[in-house]
Amino acid sequence: MIILYDNQTSGNAYKARLILHKRDLPYTRIEMDTDNGATRRPEFLKLNPEGRIPLLVLDDGTKLPESNAILAFLAKGTDLLPENAADFAQVLRWLFWEQYSHEPNIATVRYWITHKIEMTQYRKLAIEEKRTRGVAALGVMETHLAANDFFAAGRFTIADIALYAYTHVAEEGGGFDLTPYPAIRAWLARVAAQPRHISITA
Amino acid sequence: MIILYDNQTSGNAYKARLILHKRDLPYTRIEMDTDNGATRRPEFLKLNPEGRIPLLVLDDGTKLPESNAILAFLAKGTDLLPENAADFAQVLRWLFWEQYSHEPNIATVRYWITHKIEMTQYRKLAIEEKRTRGVAALGVMETHLAANDFFAAGRFTIADIALYAYTHVAEEGGGFDLTPYPAIRAWLARVAAQPRHISITA
Repeated sequence: MIILYDNQTSGNAYKARLILHKRDLPYTRIEMDTDNGATRRPEFLKLNPEGRIPLLVLDDGTKLPESNAILAFLAKGTDLLPENAADFAQVLRWLFWEQYSHEPNIATVRYWITHKIEMTQYRKLAIEEKRTRGVAALGVMETHLAANDFFAAGRFTIADIALYAYTHVAEEGGGFDLTPYPAIRAWLARVAAQPRHISITA
Repeated sequence: MIILYDNQTSGNAYKARLILHKRDLPYTRIEMDTDNGATRRPEFLKLNPEGRIPLLVLDDGTKLPESNAILAFLAKGTDLLPENAADFAQVLRWLFWEQYSHEPNIATVRYWITHKIEMTQYRKLAIEEKRTRGVAALGVMETHLAANDFFAAGRFTIADIALYAYTHVAEEGGGFDLTPYPAIRAWLARVAAQPRHISITA
């Protein structure tokens, strides 16, 4: 059976839980207490030397880190990842954008606030930079969603799952205010209304 | 004909040039003077509101940003992006890793040094953080390449193109020293020896 090394508060891990549930794939969930060093212990570092979750381990022992690679792997051959090159490309475009322009800002601000990470001088300056970039990322999403129901291919895909994960909790701990983004809020409701949706706390 | 909005010093743009050449696809190259605001002008922002290169524009007007999405789009259906799910997943895993753990550190340090970007207080602290993370990323690559000739699927794929782009110029401007990484250096030579290779300055 698939094993998911997981953490309930992680949006990246939630992506994996959400697609596993949508695809009705049985899996064993191992909750990792990241605040208390569970991902830094030798037995986990043997599985993923970078000490990060989510990590998928398949029956044959294959290890797959990187939340969006997990999404693409579990979506391949389904409607969640279009086969035609043009739509496939746009899904990937948003997956890469999420990891480069969205997650490092929106997820990191949430993590530093909700996990009460020590505010070093670097983090004090970085959090302002990340707030600015996070607001810019929300602006990009708002513009796109004002004209499109979903991010790519004219339908719900893993691009929506990837972007939903941290956007829907962006307000946690005073990180980002979604009030000025009606198109994002309408899209969040559309995503949550998809079949076999589960919440991040499920 | 495909149009590539390009910049010769950009490793991300080089990825696009390299795969276009490997696939022998004709394209029009438009060099953007990023240092002098070419990507911030209204006519370019209409094509890519984020003002970034590389940007691919197809015959039908489709716009595709994100260097690794460009790689995946142009590799789809070829040996450069395996079709079987297990190999496909590992290629994507390294593409996401490159954009999350490698490029923001190794490429950014190179950019700040070679383009003489003003060292604000934030950047002074950030560059130390990025050097540490960049060295960690090179360590991950060295460990993987000590046991594997290429990053995924047991052969040359777009995962190698993506990681080659900034690794092979990591030393520019005193950024990162590759001397302690023999497996990376051997892999750089293997990548450069692949059919239809071109240099970043070609």
